[in-house]
Amino acid sequence: MREEKIPYKIYLSESEMPKQWYNVRADMKNKPAPLLDPVTKEPMTAAELEKVFCSELVKQELDDTNAYIDIPEEILDFYKMYRPAPLVRAYCLEKHLNTPAKIYYKFEGNNTSGSHKLNSAIAQAFYAKKQGLKGVTTETGAGQWGTALSMACAYLGLDCRVFMVKVSYEQKPFRREVMRTYGASVTPSPSVTTAVGRKILAEHPGTTGSLGCAISEAVETATSMEGYRYVLGSVLSQVLLHQTIIGLETKAAMDKYNITPDVIIGCAGGGSNLGGFISPFMGEKLRGEKDYRFIAVEPETCPSLTRGKYVYDYCDTGRICPLSKMYTLGAGYIPAGTHAGGLRYHGMSSIVSQLYDDGLMEAVSVPQTSVFAAAQEFARVEGILPAPESSHAIRVAMDEAIRCRETGEEKTILFCLTGTGYFDLVAYGRYNDGEMTDTVPTDADIMKGLAGIPRFPGNEI
Amino acid sequence: MREEKIPYKIYLSESEMPKQWYNVRADMKNKPAPLLDPVTKEPMTAAELEKVFCSELVKQELDDTNAYIDIPEEILDFYKMYRPAPLVRAYCLEKHLNTPAKIYYKFEGNNTSGSHKLNSAIAQAFYAKKQGLKGVTTETGAGQWGTALSMACAYLGLDCRVFMVKVSYEQKPFRREVMRTYGASVTPSPSVTTAVGRKILAEHPGTTGSLGCAISEAVETATSMEGYRYVLGSVLSQVLLHQTIIGLETKAAMDKYNITPDVIIGCAGGGSNLGGFISPFMGEKLRGEKDYRFIAVEPETCPSLTRGKYVYDYCDTGRICPLSKMYTLGAGYIPAGTHAGGLRYHGMSSIVSQLYDDGLMEAVSVPQTSVFAAAQEFARVEGILPAPESSHAIRVAMDEAIRCRETGEEKTILFCLTGTGYFDLVAYGRYNDGEMTDTVPTDADIMKGLAGIPRFPGNEI
Repeated sequence: MREEKIPYKIYLSESEMPKQWYNVRADMKNKPAPLLDPVTKEPMTAAELEKVFCSELVKQELDDTNAYIDIPEEILDFYKMYRPAPLVRAYCLEKHLNTPAKIYYKFEGNNTSGSHKLNSAIAQAFYAKKQGLKGVTTETGAGQWGTALSMACAYLGLDCRVFMVKVSYEQKPFRREVMRTYGASVTPSPSVTTAVGRKILAEHPGTTGSLGCAISEAVETATSMEGYRYVLGSVLSQVLLHQTIIGLETKAAMDKYNITPDVIIGCAGGGSNLGGFISPFMGEKLRGEKDYRFIAVEPETCPSLTRGKYVYDYCDTGRICPLSKMYTLGAGYIPAGTHAGGLRYHGMSSIVSQLYDDGLMEAVSVPQTSVFAAAQEFARVEGILPAPESSHAIRVAMDEAIRCRETGEEKTILFCLTGTGYFDLVAYGRYNDGEMTDTVPTDADIMKGLAGIPRFPGNEI
Repeated sequence: MREEKIPYKIYLSESEMPKQWYNVRADMKNKPAPLLDPVTKEPMTAAELEKVFCSELVKQELDDTNAYIDIPEEILDFYKMYRPAPLVRAYCLEKHLNTPAKIYYKFEGNNTSGSHKLNSAIAQAFYAKKQGLKGVTTETGAGQWGTALSMACAYLGLDCRVFMVKVSYEQKPFRREVMRTYGASVTPSPSVTTAVGRKILAEHPGTTGSLGCAISEAVETATSMEGYRYVLGSVLSQVLLHQTIIGLETKAAMDKYNITPDVIIGCAGGGSNLGGFISPFMGEKLRGEKDYRFIAVEPETCPSLTRGKYVYDYCDTGRICPLSKMYTLGAGYIPAGTHAGGLRYHGMSSIVSQLYDDGLMEAVSVPQTSVFAAAQEFARVEGILPAPESSHAIRVAMDEAIRCRETGEEKTILFCLTGTGYFDLVAYGRYNDGEMTDTVPTDADIMKGLAGIPRFPGNEI
C-alpha cells in the first residue's frame, strides 16, 4: 500500500532544500497591476520606492519576468536553522474523520516567531544589512511579524525598531518581551517619538492606536533617520516571493514520494503565505502542465476576496504607502470587535488578486466559531495547537475530507499550517468559555468600507 | 573537513527511531535504593504501589534488571507525530563564541507542550488506557507537565483532571487554556473537591496553594474514584525510563555521523530529563566501553545535588507518597521568592542520585541571572527562545566552549535543550527590565530544609 511507505513527517535533507525563490509573475499571462503613487496616480519608479524600501527588495518588487531568483547563501544558512519545515501526513486526523481522503499539511510553526513570517523577515533584514544600513523599522499588531523581524535582526546585528499598536503592547506583553529579548526596541504606537504620533496623541489623547498609525510612525522613522528603511511583513510581491520557499519545499517533498495534491488550501490575510505556498503549483497550472484546485480561506468578518472589489486602494489606513490594485474592502474597513481569528487586513496581495480575478483559484469565507472548533479538533488528534489564522485552512481541509467520507472519493488534500497559537490563548479561552460569537458584516458595513476607496479615472467601483 | 558534512539538524528517519527504552539500572552495579512505605519504612510492594499507579508502570518502576523495554506500537505512533527530535549542530553559537569546540544540542521543544514531558505523558496515559481506566489525575505547577498530560489524554480519549497550584492558575491563564483546549479539567488547588483541599482551605482561607497540596488533592481524587490513577511527571524511575528516548535518539544520530561527545550536559530538576538523556551514554561508561564526562546543572537557589544530603526523604511536601532515597534539600525546602528559573524540586531521581553518589557524574549550580544571560545570547544567535530550565544547560555548555577558546581544545560538547520559553515571558521580562536578582541560600536556609527529613535507623543525616 502506498500510504504505508509515507512517513508521518517528510523532511527534505539540507541538500534538497530549494536554492531559488520562484517568481510566479513570470508565468502569469495577466501580470499584477503596478503600484501607483498615491498623489500622481502614476506607476512608482524604482527610484521612488528606494526612498522607503531597500534597493534589492525594490528590484524584486518590480520584477515580473524572471521566474527564479537565487536565495543568497547567508539566507540559506539562516533557513537551515529552522527549515526545512516538515510536510506532515495527517494520519491521526484522517482516522479521526474516518475519511478515505489523504490529508497533508506543511507546518511552518516550528520556530520561535511561531509562523512563516520569518521566511521573509530574514530576507528583508539581509538585504538591508547588505546595503550597509544600520537598521529597519516596522509596525506590528499582534506581534508575529515584529517577533520574526526581531529574530532576523538579532542574528545579523541590525537595529530593529518596532512600533506596536498600543492596545496590543499593553494586552500582549509576552510578544513584546520576546521582541525585547531579541534586542528590538518596541514602542507603543502612537508615540511622542514621531510627528505623526504626536499629532494623533494631541487630537485623540486616549487612543489605543491602530495598525495604520503604527505604519505611519514606522515609515516616518525610517525616512527621517540616516541608514534606516521600512520593511513590511505581507501584501507586497517581494514578501510573497520569499514565502515561495514554503511551496517549493512542499512540492519537492511531495515529488519525492510521488504525491499529487488534488486540492490545495491556504488561509488568506494579506495573501503572502497563501501566494508563496501555492506559487509552484500555480506555475504548473499557468504553464498548462498540471491542474489543481486552489482554495483561499478568509474570515467571514473580513472577506476581501469574496465580498471586496478589485480596484486600486491604499495599502495602509494611513494612506501614505503606494496604491495597489487588489481585492479590497477599503483601507478604512474595520472587522467587527468580536473578531479574534486574525487575518484582518482589508486588502489582498496583487498577485493573489490577479490570479483570483482570472478564475485560477477559488475563495471561501468561514465563521470564526467553526474555525476554532476545527482548531480544537485538530489539536486534540494531531497534537499541534494551531494559530487561529492557520485554522481557517484547517476548517476547509476538514470539510473537504468529510465530504470525501460521504462521496467515497480518495482525494489528496494539502493545506498550509502557517503557525502555532501559543500567543492566542485569550481567544482560545473565549472559545473554551463559550463566549465567542460570529459576526457577518452587513452590506451596509461593506459599503461603508468601500466608500473610502480612492476614485480616479479607471478606478471606479 | 568533517564538519562540512554535518547538517545543521540531524533527523533520524522513522525507521531509525528507537523501538525500546533503555533501563540504565540493569547496568548499574549499585542499584538505586527501593521506595519505602512512609509509615512502616519497609520497601513498597507492587501490590501497594498499584493502589496509586497503573500496573504496567509499577512493573517498570520496580524493574532494575531488564536493560531494554519494548515501546508499545501505539506509543511509537504518537512519538512519530512530534519525534524524532532534531540533534542540532550549533554552528551559529560556535561562530558567535569563536570557539574551536563543536557544540551539539538535542532539541525537545518542538511540540505544543513545549518540552520533553510529552515523552512520558503519552506512555503513562497509554498504560492507563490499556488497563481499562477511565482517567488520570495529576498536579501541575507552571503547567508544562499538565499540558503534556492533557495532550496525551486527548489523543487517547482519556479523562484528565489536573490540580493546578492556585497562584499559577491565576497568574498563568495561558497554560490553563491550553489544557482546557485539550479537554482537561483544570482545578485551582486547594479546592473544595477534596477532603484535603477543604481542610487546607478551612485552616488557611487565603492560601495561594502549593505543589504539595496539589499532589495530595490529585492522589485523593485518583484513589477515591473508580477507574482513576495518579500519574507523575518526574522523579520516578519509570519517568526517567520513558525519557531515555531522548538519549537513544541522540546517540543514534551521533553514531550515524561518527560523532563522540566529550562532555554531556543536562539541567536537573527532578532528574528525569537529565537521566533519560545521559542513560545510553552512561550505560557505555558503566559497561566499561567508553568514558564520558557528565555534568548535571542545577540552580544555585535549589542545589539538591551540590548541597543536599543522600538520604530517604518524602517525594512530596504532603508526605503521602513513598519515601525515596535521593539527594534532597528536604521536602519542606522552599527556593527563594526571587527564583524564576524553574527546577525548584527539593529532591532528585533515585537513579541520578546513585550515579552521582558513585562518582560517575559531576554537578554544578549556577546563578539565575547568568542563566538568563546565556538564554538571551543563545536565542539571538540560534533562533530558539529556550526555557529557563533548559538554559541552565546552555550556560554550562557555553562556559565549556569559552574555556575551549582559551585552551584551544577541540572538544565536542553535547547538551539537552529540553524546551521553549514561550510561557516564561514574565521571567524574561524581569530579566529584560534588569529586575532579576540572584539569591544564594545560606547554610541556615539549607539546614532548615534538611531538618524536615524523616529520621529512622539507617537514615541519619
